[in-house]
Amino acid sequence: MIEDKNQSKTPLSELGEFGLIDHLTKNFKINHVSTIKGIGDDAAVLDLKNNQIVVTTDMLVEGVHFDLSYMPLKHLGYKAMIVNLSDVYAMNAEAKQVTVSIAVSNRFPLEALEELYSGIETAAKIYNVDVVGGDTTSSTTGLIISITAIGSVKTDEVAYRSGAKPNDLLVVSGDLGAAYMGLQVLEREKEVFKVNPQNQPDLENYTYIIERQLKPEARKDIVKLLKDLEVKPTSMIDISDGLSSEIMHLCKQSEVGCELYENKIPLDPQVISTCEEFNIDSTTVALNGGEDYELLFTISQQDFEKIKANPNLTVIGFIKEKSAGMHLITRAETSIPLKAQGWNSFSS
Amino acid sequence: MIEDKNQSKTPLSELGEFGLIDHLTKNFKINHVSTIKGIGDDAAVLDLKNNQIVVTTDMLVEGVHFDLSYMPLKHLGYKAMIVNLSDVYAMNAEAKQVTVSIAVSNRFPLEALEELYSGIETAAKIYNVDVVGGDTTSSTTGLIISITAIGSVKTDEVAYRSGAKPNDLLVVSGDLGAAYMGLQVLEREKEVFKVNPQNQPDLENYTYIIERQLKPEARKDIVKLLKDLEVKPTSMIDISDGLSSEIMHLCKQSEVGCELYENKIPLDPQVISTCEEFNIDSTTVALNGGEDYELLFTISQQDFEKIKANPNLTVIGFIKEKSAGMHLITRAETSIPLKAQGWNSFSS
Repeated sequence: MIEDKNQSKTPLSELGEFGLIDHLTKNFKINHVSTIKGIGDDAAVLDLKNNQIVVTTDMLVEGVHFDLSYMPLKHLGYKAMIVNLSDVYAMNAEAKQVTVSIAVSNRFPLEALEELYSGIETAAKIYNVDVVGGDTTSSTTGLIISITAIGSVKTDEVAYRSGAKPNDLLVVSGDLGAAYMGLQVLEREKEVFKVNPQNQPDLENYTYIIERQLKPEARKDIVKLLKDLEVKPTSMIDISDGLSSEIMHLCKQSEVGCELYENKIPLDPQVISTCEEFNIDSTTVALNGGEDYELLFTISQQDFEKIKANPNLTVIGFIKEKSAGMHLITRAETSIPLKAQGWNSFSS
Repeated sequence: MIEDKNQSKTPLSELGEFGLIDHLTKNFKINHVSTIKGIGDDAAVLDLKNNQIVVTTDMLVEGVHFDLSYMPLKHLGYKAMIVNLSDVYAMNAEAKQVTVSIAVSNRFPLEALEELYSGIETAAKIYNVDVVGGDTTSSTTGLIISITAIGSVKTDEVAYRSGAKPNDLLVVSGDLGAAYMGLQVLEREKEVFKVNPQNQPDLENYTYIIERQLKPEARKDIVKLLKDLEVKPTSMIDISDGLSSEIMHLCKQSEVGCELYENKIPLDPQVISTCEEFNIDSTTVALNGGEDYELLFTISQQDFEKIKANPNLTVIGFIKEKSAGMHLITRAETSIPLKAQGWNSFSS
């Protein structure tokens, strides 16, 4: 919410399209031996040997997926990477390369794009992926970011959405609902700022949930952890649209039912206190909030011993026969059907 | 330029994001054995065996790259595919898979997206590529299409931009400048239509050049032809921004110079006659026009015998030492330095 009025600004037209790509990508280093050729030819060339390749793509649109009034461009670049990398990890694969395309209007100076790309570069370093291509073009309004991520995985290690079996355990990494509550706090502060721009918000009680919204992480560590524990998930999906909707995807594609236990859903204390403050039910937030980028997966019961002591993982339910349906078992031990109320960019 | 006022229109919000993707992609068939998993999981899974993988991405923005007042949506979908496939062929590779992401404003009804996707599907069939993923989201204004294409190629067959050697021949497929002149005709007819909407344009003399603008093709056939002729290009690039700019890319990355012969540049008779009508120099159009999606490549002189009889290929110059610079030898036998005046989306 703080804008630096004194920054020097370079119009994009000064560089031209090729100059712009060169300028923005000149610091990007190639780290993977599988990247034979990165930026600078008609296409990138990769050599992923005999592994299977996973490919995923996501597009983020200003005014739909992000609001630059509280999303710093560096964080946006970082988050755009995370959204895609998370999908690669959800296949139990290792992310290796990305391509980054942006369309941007003239209201953005070069320095704004440098900020955006520094976020992309930071994520590329932390997650060890090579930026191997992309496209930079103008838009008539706003900023659009489209990223495609590529990963590799041994043929017998891919985790699809469709592999869950009755009696498997339903497991989730980390905790849920924080990104959504962070967004609620940021939206509220934006309204306060509009009324009184001199007001400096005190966000100390919300640091975790705001960070989960502005700077989410993808669970590369969980993929490694499961390998180290010698646990192969029978199915896996990342939580981008809310737990409820993702469980329903898993169950539908696996042709199974499930029971999810409300009292097992992992919530951070800050989520609980902020939900109380906003008078929102924390279970509803965890079920429908979205943007957590945690991994939801199923494991065979015999693997329970291997994961039970790990603080990063929580067993939240069981897979059942398809005929049993998909239910939430509440704290009051009532069984209610799961509903997908995940985020929909086309509803107004 | 003809709008059907009677079409029934379905608002996108009726389907929701998942419903929309399902609806638009339900006809897409998987043809490649290398596509292990297409749409429907966190990521697509591919098995390209021991081949190298080429990856390329391009974004098309309404009002910047296309004008829907004369670009039918079906053609737009087709062209968005061609732009990307052309880059795969320019690596001497075979295109196998694509991901398609679109951001679209509420002013587009479902039927418009169906048109767009039918063009994508047609191109996928003709060029034998699988649509394996993508993203469909809303935009605040206009239509944005981002496609990533993936191909495979044997390690020793990749053609980079950087492999041209002095004395190599400079070869181009097809003919040049037609897409640009097609655009000039369409822009003129749009102005006429604005003044008098009843006027039915007579475009009979411009069918070839208009088709080159609205429905370009990628030269998959040339990649196959070169294999059949047992010619491996020493370097290759596709012509998206105009011959001059592409030759300069090849020469710079190969660290060589060149001589390009004006009288060898292949022009269709319709380009010549339309250039005369518009009072534009046809060489300028061929050098700077762009969007031809022909292949520009270099071959060793010893391969000349193999290609010389082929009507699809024209030798247009020679590669020289870098110190010789990059020159156009005019019909008057004057030598003038090449300039890149390719299309720049950031200049206004």
